[in-house]
Amino acid sequence: MSRFWSPIVHRLTPYVPGEQPKIADLIKLNTNELPYSPSPKALAAMRAAAEDSSMRLYPDPEALALRTALGKRVGLTPDHVFVGNGSDEVLAHAFKAFFEHEGPLLFADVTYSFYKVYCGLFDLPYRLVPLADDMQVRIEDYAGPCSGVVLANPNAPTGIALGLGAIRQLLDMHPDRVVLIDEAYVDFGAESAVSLVQDYPNLLVVQTFSKSRALAGARVGFAFGQPDLIEGLVRIKDSFNSYPLDRVAQAGATAAVEDEAYFKESVGKVMASRTRLSAGLAALGFEVLPSEANFVYARHADRDAATLAANLRERAIIVRHLRGERTQSWLRITIGTDPQCDMLLSALRDILHRNS
Amino acid sequence: MSRFWSPIVHRLTPYVPGEQPKIADLIKLNTNELPYSPSPKALAAMRAAAEDSSMRLYPDPEALALRTALGKRVGLTPDHVFVGNGSDEVLAHAFKAFFEHEGPLLFADVTYSFYKVYCGLFDLPYRLVPLADDMQVRIEDYAGPCSGVVLANPNAPTGIALGLGAIRQLLDMHPDRVVLIDEAYVDFGAESAVSLVQDYPNLLVVQTFSKSRALAGARVGFAFGQPDLIEGLVRIKDSFNSYPLDRVAQAGATAAVEDEAYFKESVGKVMASRTRLSAGLAALGFEVLPSEANFVYARHADRDAATLAANLRERAIIVRHLRGERTQSWLRITIGTDPQCDMLLSALRDILHRNS
Repeated sequence: MSRFWSPIVHRLTPYVPGEQPKIADLIKLNTNELPYSPSPKALAAMRAAAEDSSMRLYPDPEALALRTALGKRVGLTPDHVFVGNGSDEVLAHAFKAFFEHEGPLLFADVTYSFYKVYCGLFDLPYRLVPLADDMQVRIEDYAGPCSGVVLANPNAPTGIALGLGAIRQLLDMHPDRVVLIDEAYVDFGAESAVSLVQDYPNLLVVQTFSKSRALAGARVGFAFGQPDLIEGLVRIKDSFNSYPLDRVAQAGATAAVEDEAYFKESVGKVMASRTRLSAGLAALGFEVLPSEANFVYARHADRDAATLAANLRERAIIVRHLRGERTQSWLRITIGTDPQCDMLLSALRDILHRNS
Repeated sequence: MSRFWSPIVHRLTPYVPGEQPKIADLIKLNTNELPYSPSPKALAAMRAAAEDSSMRLYPDPEALALRTALGKRVGLTPDHVFVGNGSDEVLAHAFKAFFEHEGPLLFADVTYSFYKVYCGLFDLPYRLVPLADDMQVRIEDYAGPCSGVVLANPNAPTGIALGLGAIRQLLDMHPDRVVLIDEAYVDFGAESAVSLVQDYPNLLVVQTFSKSRALAGARVGFAFGQPDLIEGLVRIKDSFNSYPLDRVAQAGATAAVEDEAYFKESVGKVMASRTRLSAGLAALGFEVLPSEANFVYARHADRDAATLAANLRERAIIVRHLRGERTQSWLRITIGTDPQCDMLLSALRDILHRNS
C-alpha cells in the first residue's frame, strides 16, 4: 500500500508464475517447458546476433523477418502476423485492443489464470463459464451478449483440445466480437485455428515459442489474424513500447520457425512420452485427462494432491498444484524426457507405497 | 478502423520511432545510439547465455542478478530497483502505476514525445509546461495541483540538463506526487538524481542500457525508487507479463553494469566528440544548445532544418528532424565517432556552400 499508487494498483491481484528454482538438479515438471534444447540453428542465430557491434543499434521495431517467416509457414502474409515479448504480452495487448465493449468477456472457470488478471488490469468485466463435470468445454454455454471470448485450445491446465468444428461454432456465434484462441499448447497434437483466419474476421489465434520451440528463455509470442485486427494490436504496441523484441530474440525465433524438421522431432518425442506417462500414471491409480498438450492433468482416487506435490518436491521433482475448488485435487505434470517421466513414476510409486 | 477495436484504439496516436534503416552503409545519427560496440564482456555473456539448453527454460521473472548489480553500483538494495523491456516499458508501467490521480500530469511542451502517447493509452489528462525561450526548463512553472511530474534530465531533444538543486526543488514542491526523472541520457555529463532516492519517497529515476551502455538491441531499462514505488511497478508488471526480460538480455545487461571501465571509456569518448562537433557546427553558423547528452540540438541562422536533413540524407547521413512549431527549425544530431562527426561537418559545409 502506498499513497503514490494509482487506485488500480491497490485493486490488482497479480499473476503468480510457476516457480523458477535457482537450484539446478531438480526435475522441473511445473511450467511446461520442453525437456529438449531449442533448435541448434536457433541457438547459433542467437549467438551470431550477439557477435558484433549491431547490438548497439535498436532492433527492427516491426520484426519483419520474423513475421514473414511465421506467415510463410502457414500461408499468410506478414500483415496477418503480430509478434510480442512472449505470448503473455500479446494476450495483454489483445485484451486492451479488443475487449472494451459492452457485455462481459467470456472464458472458462478452469483455464489460464492470467485472463482474470488482464481483466483486472484493464477494468474489463468478465463472466466465468464453467467447464462440464468431465472438464470439457461446452460451446453452447458461450452464447449470449459478450465483449468477446477467450478460449485456450488445448485448455490449460486440463490439456483437453477442441476440434475446429467447435471453434467454427464459436466464431459463428459471435460475428461482431473477437474470439481469441490461445494456442500456447497447440503443437502437441491439436488442430490450429490458423486455417480459419482467412474466413473469419473475428478470429485471433495466439501462439508462443516457449513450449514447442523450447525458447521460453527468449520471450517470443505471436498472433495470427486479419490485417485490421493486427493493426489494432500494432496501435496498442506502438503506444506502449516500440521495440518489444530484441535483436537476439528476433534472430533466434526466425531460425527456429525455419527449422521444421527439428520442431517435428521434438514434438514427436514429447507426444510419445505423454502416451507412456499417461499409461504409467493410470497404472498407479491416477485418473488422467486426455491431453493434447505437453503436460497431463491427473488426480489420484484417494490421495491429496497438495500432499503428493509436497512429497515429490522432497524427492527433487516439482509439478504444479493449483488451489481452487475445481483444481485442488489435480496435479499438472509437464512431460519430461522418458528418463524424467520414469523417475516421476518411480517416486510416485514409492510415495503411494510408503503411505498406504 | 475496425468494429472489433476497443474505443481507445481509435483514439490513439501511436509513437513513431526514428527510422531504423535496412541499408547498412548509412551514417546513422538519428536515434542516439552509441557509435561504439557494447562491452565485450556483455557480448560474451550474451553468447554464453545462448550456448546451452537453459534457453528452453523461463528466465528469472525477478531478474535478481541484474537488479542486484544495478543497485550495488549506486549503493541501493535490489528492492530499490525495477527492470523492464527497455525504458519505454518501464515508463509505460510507471505512468499506469502512479499517475491516475486528480489533476493533470505535468511535462514539458518540448520533450520525449512518448509521454503524450502514454497519456493517450492510459486516459491520463496532462498539461504541457512550455520551456523558456532559450529551451530551458523553469522549475517554478511546475507548481500547482497535478497528478505527477515527468521530467527528462537531460531533456530530449534539447540535451540541456538541470542540476540536483532544481530536482530537489521539484520534489519538495510535490511531496504527495511521484516525480519521475527520465535519465535516459544522464551518463554523458549530467548528475543523476539516484543519490536522492533515499531522501525522497516520491522520486522515481528511470534509466536505460540503450544509450551509454550501447545495448539498444537488447531492450533493457530500469528504475530506482523506494521499495513501495518499486512494488507498485512490480504489481503492474506481474499483471501484464511475468517475464519481460529474456535470458540473453539479463546476462548481457548484468555483465555491462559490471564493466565500469569500458563504460567510462565509451562515455568519455562521446563527450570529447561532442565538444568537437559542437565547435564545428558553431563554426558553420549553427546555434548549438549546451548538451549533456549524446546528441546536440542545433539550428542554422538562415537555413531550413527539414531541407538540411533531406540534403544530408542524400549524402547517406541521417539525423532527426521533428515537426512542430518549436522544433521545426532544429536538427537533433547523435554524436558519432570522430570520423563520422567530421563527415557530417564536411557534408554540411558542402551543402551550405552549394546553396549559398
